[in-house]
Amino acid sequence: MTEERSKTIAFVVYPGLTLLDLAGPLQVLTPLAVAGYRVLTVGERATPHDTDTPLAITPTHTFADVPTPDVVVVPGGAAPTLRAMADERLLDYLRTASAHATVLASVCTGALLLGAAGLLDGRRATTHWVMRDQLAALGATPVAERWVEDGPVLTAAGVAAGIDMALHLVTRLEGADIARTIQFAVEYDPEPPLGPLDWSRAPHAEFGALRSAWLREGLADHPDLLARLGGDSVA
Amino acid sequence: MTEERSKTIAFVVYPGLTLLDLAGPLQVLTPLAVAGYRVLTVGERATPHDTDTPLAITPTHTFADVPTPDVVVVPGGAAPTLRAMADERLLDYLRTASAHATVLASVCTGALLLGAAGLLDGRRATTHWVMRDQLAALGATPVAERWVEDGPVLTAAGVAAGIDMALHLVTRLEGADIARTIQFAVEYDPEPPLGPLDWSRAPHAEFGALRSAWLREGLADHPDLLARLGGDSVA
Repeated sequence: MTEERSKTIAFVVYPGLTLLDLAGPLQVLTPLAVAGYRVLTVGERATPHDTDTPLAITPTHTFADVPTPDVVVVPGGAAPTLRAMADERLLDYLRTASAHATVLASVCTGALLLGAAGLLDGRRATTHWVMRDQLAALGATPVAERWVEDGPVLTAAGVAAGIDMALHLVTRLEGADIARTIQFAVEYDPEPPLGPLDWSRAPHAEFGALRSAWLREGLADHPDLLARLGGDSVA
Repeated sequence: MTEERSKTIAFVVYPGLTLLDLAGPLQVLTPLAVAGYRVLTVGERATPHDTDTPLAITPTHTFADVPTPDVVVVPGGAAPTLRAMADERLLDYLRTASAHATVLASVCTGALLLGAAGLLDGRRATTHWVMRDQLAALGATPVAERWVEDGPVLTAAGVAAGIDMALHLVTRLEGADIARTIQFAVEYDPEPPLGPLDWSRAPHAEFGALRSAWLREGLADHPDLLARLGGDSVA
């Protein structure tokens, strides 16, 4: 495949992200290299970044190296992702990339970063269930689905939903046959030992308290943003 | 929680592993820190390691730092994992750890590393479906289940099965309530866009060719091991 025909898929890395938000879709999309895609990871710097697990990760490229990816995937996280909502270098990267990219994807609270960059205006979108209501403050219409497509914007629900979204994206880009082959490769045949989530038992109080703590911690230096995302109710 | 009561969960890192084999269970087990566990990652060196995706990973500790974990989790991979079957430092780590650990877990072809260390003798075990028959050559009884427990040995099927296994392990260690809370935290409510795997459509020929290539590449310097794992049929 010639250089000008190959498409680039860039996964955005920043400090403190939720590892599985990144690793699930990255594992699913990496095999697209055999279909001619350049699959890579980008950060402000190509040095080790902490995650929310005891593992550091190093992207292959910097933002400057890959200014015009065709597909951008933004993982989420807890307080560090809220902090990243005020990271102008990251937001500038997303805005610049959005002018060229045909797919702007997020996993979990990565949607809040798309929103902070102004890329969710008037879009239907989803995110981690704990943060779903916050999307409205960023101009989006929150939707309770596993993944949501609206034009170039493709948002997934929390963490593990990135795997489902990525398989959908493979189907959209290259068809169901390769998506099915990848699903066999990663043996994605889920058997949650306690069954699927029973949403009638969702621990709203416990996670609501976590949300308040994440907002206060992540947006401590940005009272306007804190107030916009529900700071009044969490102060 | 006092130091002597806290239990250590160590995830083994080595060059070229399959990222999601590690990241799925690591994301699920990391929250056990709030229950007093030390959750960490160990490698021969605490410097960046390549994975099978465009992302490098750095463990928090070296093998020497954590000689007696209570729980060991070994991720798998393709040719690099087969190569690791002859990595005596890694195998020594597993053997030494096995004298103390109450759980020896693997994801995907990580089971081949447990087997190479002599830890699957007479055990029922599973691994990635493409490599399942190879377990018999390592003294195990291959089982086609999502995860298999036999004494201290807990093996998962391929890649994404590590998430299911890890949630089961949380239940075993700390009960179903915390496992359910973690399942909500990682929003593990799978909706594979093409549905669950239809095993009647498994691409045996295509993945059989891959298996042969992985065995030849990974075990090129170890003809005895290559012959033992099916080298005769792949030569």
